[in-house]
Amino acid sequence: MGATARLKLYTYFRSSAAYRVRIALNLKGLSYQSVPVHLLKNGGEQLQDSYRAINPGAMLPSLQDGDATVTQSLAILEYLEEVYPDIALLPGDALGRARVRALALTVACDIHPINNLRVLKYLSGNLQISEKAKADWYRHWVQEGFGIIETHLARDRQTGSFCHGDAPTLADCCLIPQVFNAQRFKVDLSVYPTIKGIHDRCAELPAFISAHPEQQPDAEK
Amino acid sequence: MGATARLKLYTYFRSSAAYRVRIALNLKGLSYQSVPVHLLKNGGEQLQDSYRAINPGAMLPSLQDGDATVTQSLAILEYLEEVYPDIALLPGDALGRARVRALALTVACDIHPINNLRVLKYLSGNLQISEKAKADWYRHWVQEGFGIIETHLARDRQTGSFCHGDAPTLADCCLIPQVFNAQRFKVDLSVYPTIKGIHDRCAELPAFISAHPEQQPDAEK
Repeated sequence: MGATARLKLYTYFRSSAAYRVRIALNLKGLSYQSVPVHLLKNGGEQLQDSYRAINPGAMLPSLQDGDATVTQSLAILEYLEEVYPDIALLPGDALGRARVRALALTVACDIHPINNLRVLKYLSGNLQISEKAKADWYRHWVQEGFGIIETHLARDRQTGSFCHGDAPTLADCCLIPQVFNAQRFKVDLSVYPTIKGIHDRCAELPAFISAHPEQQPDAEK
Repeated sequence: MGATARLKLYTYFRSSAAYRVRIALNLKGLSYQSVPVHLLKNGGEQLQDSYRAINPGAMLPSLQDGDATVTQSLAILEYLEEVYPDIALLPGDALGRARVRALALTVACDIHPINNLRVLKYLSGNLQISEKAKADWYRHWVQEGFGIIETHLARDRQTGSFCHGDAPTLADCCLIPQVFNAQRFKVDLSVYPTIKGIHDRCAELPAFISAHPEQQPDAEK
């Protein structure tokens, strides 16, 4: 086990941000302990004081590495890349790294936060919008973001079997969980053939399979 | 001028994401050419084909470094840090870098995207919410995010005159533009004394002053 047994991930099976980190941990071959935090039960376990002591943002995931805690999924991914570099998830050149980060950030900034649970709750609760309007909202931001990512991927010869070349990077760690969410909300993926092709290839890799929400210890039927 | 004259920043004076990059360029002492893209005039200049050819995401900022283009403000900040490292905006240790990135991402993922122009337009247009409800929405997400950041900063002894120690980092590059936005929407900053203190110290530094929206060539009265 060695140093990697030190890693503890606070996660929820359906959390898209936690899913990103699970993929990266698996790709890097790092074993870790899963600590489930249920976002809906008990009024939201992430809101309880015991979890806020770990992460005052009351959001998932958090990674503990020995005594240290890292929050924010992209900061966790960069931390893992720096501290456990043997299997690299960023390319070797600065422009390649910038491209991978820009793709990852298009998911992490331009799609995911607008469709996060707390925002959907605000739409339903404070703004009293209908379930139909909420589903339209969700799909709208996925389609906006996927349109951008598809254009980037389709026009750029640095795209390979995966988002950047022929091995998975942090961009794939972020994209695949967003595809999972898109499928839950019945977004038509056939208009994003490059994204769909990358998704289908990732879906066959053990690191992605064992990070899938349905494979988590806290998964619900 | 040397290598730095190669840098060209597509920017809008009030774009919070462009403002982050302007601060970092100034802190690093890198000269650059400003190319204004007006987000409201001409139906949104960022939506025109000429800009989409540079950035298919049709968002600001984009940085050109010679022939290369980098998009997504946080990817640009990391790129500048890697390629122009002389004045560092990330700490030397992995945990310190993770902390700075987590603070920056709390602004860049958890506050800014939800309050971005295109989201506010959707709220007004598609969802027909009132100006009052839109302003409440805006303040809500700033207050949620600033609450988290204030807790992080106030409880952690790594906080110094700035977000991390006594020199500005990428966290300050992201925080200060968000404070500017919060002030525009009349968020009461007195409940975030640590954020306010850091803001007031940054506001006296030339790098932050010359990056301010009102100091830009495209600023409006």
